[in-house]
Amino acid sequence: MSMAARPYIERALAEALANTTAAGHPPRLAAAVRHAVFPGGARIRPQLCLAVAHACDIDDPELALGAAAAVELLHCASLVHDDLPCFDAALTRRGQPSVQCAFGERLAVLAGDALIVLAFEAVAKAAGRSPHRLAPLVATLAGGVGLPSGIAAGQAWECEPTIDLARYHRAKTGALFIASARAGAQAAGADTSGWEQLGARLGDAYQAADDIRDVAGTLQWLGKPVGRDKALDRPSLAREFGLAAATRHFERLIDEAEGAVPECAGSASLRALVRAEANRLIPRQLAEELVASAT
Amino acid sequence: MSMAARPYIERALAEALANTTAAGHPPRLAAAVRHAVFPGGARIRPQLCLAVAHACDIDDPELALGAAAAVELLHCASLVHDDLPCFDAALTRRGQPSVQCAFGERLAVLAGDALIVLAFEAVAKAAGRSPHRLAPLVATLAGGVGLPSGIAAGQAWECEPTIDLARYHRAKTGALFIASARAGAQAAGADTSGWEQLGARLGDAYQAADDIRDVAGTLQWLGKPVGRDKALDRPSLAREFGLAAATRHFERLIDEAEGAVPECAGSASLRALVRAEANRLIPRQLAEELVASAT
Repeated sequence: MSMAARPYIERALAEALANTTAAGHPPRLAAAVRHAVFPGGARIRPQLCLAVAHACDIDDPELALGAAAAVELLHCASLVHDDLPCFDAALTRRGQPSVQCAFGERLAVLAGDALIVLAFEAVAKAAGRSPHRLAPLVATLAGGVGLPSGIAAGQAWECEPTIDLARYHRAKTGALFIASARAGAQAAGADTSGWEQLGARLGDAYQAADDIRDVAGTLQWLGKPVGRDKALDRPSLAREFGLAAATRHFERLIDEAEGAVPECAGSASLRALVRAEANRLIPRQLAEELVASAT
Repeated sequence: MSMAARPYIERALAEALANTTAAGHPPRLAAAVRHAVFPGGARIRPQLCLAVAHACDIDDPELALGAAAAVELLHCASLVHDDLPCFDAALTRRGQPSVQCAFGERLAVLAGDALIVLAFEAVAKAAGRSPHRLAPLVATLAGGVGLPSGIAAGQAWECEPTIDLARYHRAKTGALFIASARAGAQAAGADTSGWEQLGARLGDAYQAADDIRDVAGTLQWLGKPVGRDKALDRPSLAREFGLAAATRHFERLIDEAEGAVPECAGSASLRALVRAEANRLIPRQLAEELVASAT
């Protein structure tokens, strides 16, 4: 989660998309895919993946970058499909028109599909030096986005007659954070135990921050519409328990994430990075104001 | 493409879906995914994959079955998304309600996504004995469905201001046939050259048959609405050149497919299977009637 990783991540994403404009491609779909990926958001998932790989004594940087690109492409795919008219009907995303707004609903469906495919392609292309690590990595990525409890499953809870809030959030947000942390360890040929907890806690914290920002944020700050949870009557901790309680919950999750970093050579810097990410999500001053607002 | 392969394919598909109902899954999404896969159609793509693997002296049947399941799951995913309201808005598929009709638009989007993910998961799970073959297999599957020229690209040509009919059909139908044939060879650790031509010709023939059936068929015969190409103003050989010319074109493509089978131990039986599949697509008597109808 260091800023130093950003250029490598952007390059890995550009490489993953390089072949989309090869001879014979439909220009508008290729443009829609590019629009979904660049310019990006915080790239928090690939940064988590790379940070874990580094903490695990990375020995195949190419594979770690391929895995990092894959988790980000899967995240982008989920955003494109989330913004579809049948879900959030969002017109903006990351401060620019959403894919469905800029390219239409049909190309948004296809761009999401193509991005999922590109994710698996990216990690496979990077596995040349460590072929034995590819199958577990594919399983991890699939677990983060598919059934029974990845992103698609999380989104599907909105279509069930009754919803389990913890399970919904865990699948919709936590699963890909867990997969990002696992993938970082697997790309480095390391044991994944321990890293999943870090991913889970960070995912929970990220979801809590998202709820808080949706209630407290401004369009300018987020680059996407706020108040969507209320407008769409989506379950939200901040709506249910108030901003102060949600912020205290967020801070507790960040503490737990820090505590979940396994002991290793890179654990001190990983903990510092968790703190920095927390401050990016909910700036300390805002958090203090939100907690104080309850009294 | 022998009927004997069907039970193995159905079992491999059931295994690929086994984990979708593990603890914590959203029941309706898991049901939608199952609905999209069972009962199936002709399973022509996985049969092609397995037939090629057998012709290449299959030495890892588990991997060949994983690859076969993967191409069928990708095919099912494309059907589910094709049937969405923004594309064909189809209410029936394979003689039953389409996924979007039975489960709604949102679960149809998510089921398609989950099926793409399950496809890559299935082949990765099957690669335990031959890890070196997984990366090329993933690349082949991705090429069949993604950018620049897989199924999503083919579908996207409908969203371009001008359309190249050959490129459109090659991407929308041919690409996954080519991938199925390639994957069969790769799963057997064999060279893919030669097999791509067989896949390409079969894919062209299948597309031609689909056009013919869309004009000449009945709802009962196909299990899906006919006349859709005309209703949706989709490019179609049969609409452009008439049924007789389209049927002659279909027969030429089948001849070419037969001729494209590389010389190997299993080539005689593969050629016989191409003939049998042709007769299933357009029964010989119907073909004769259609060709005669021009005079």
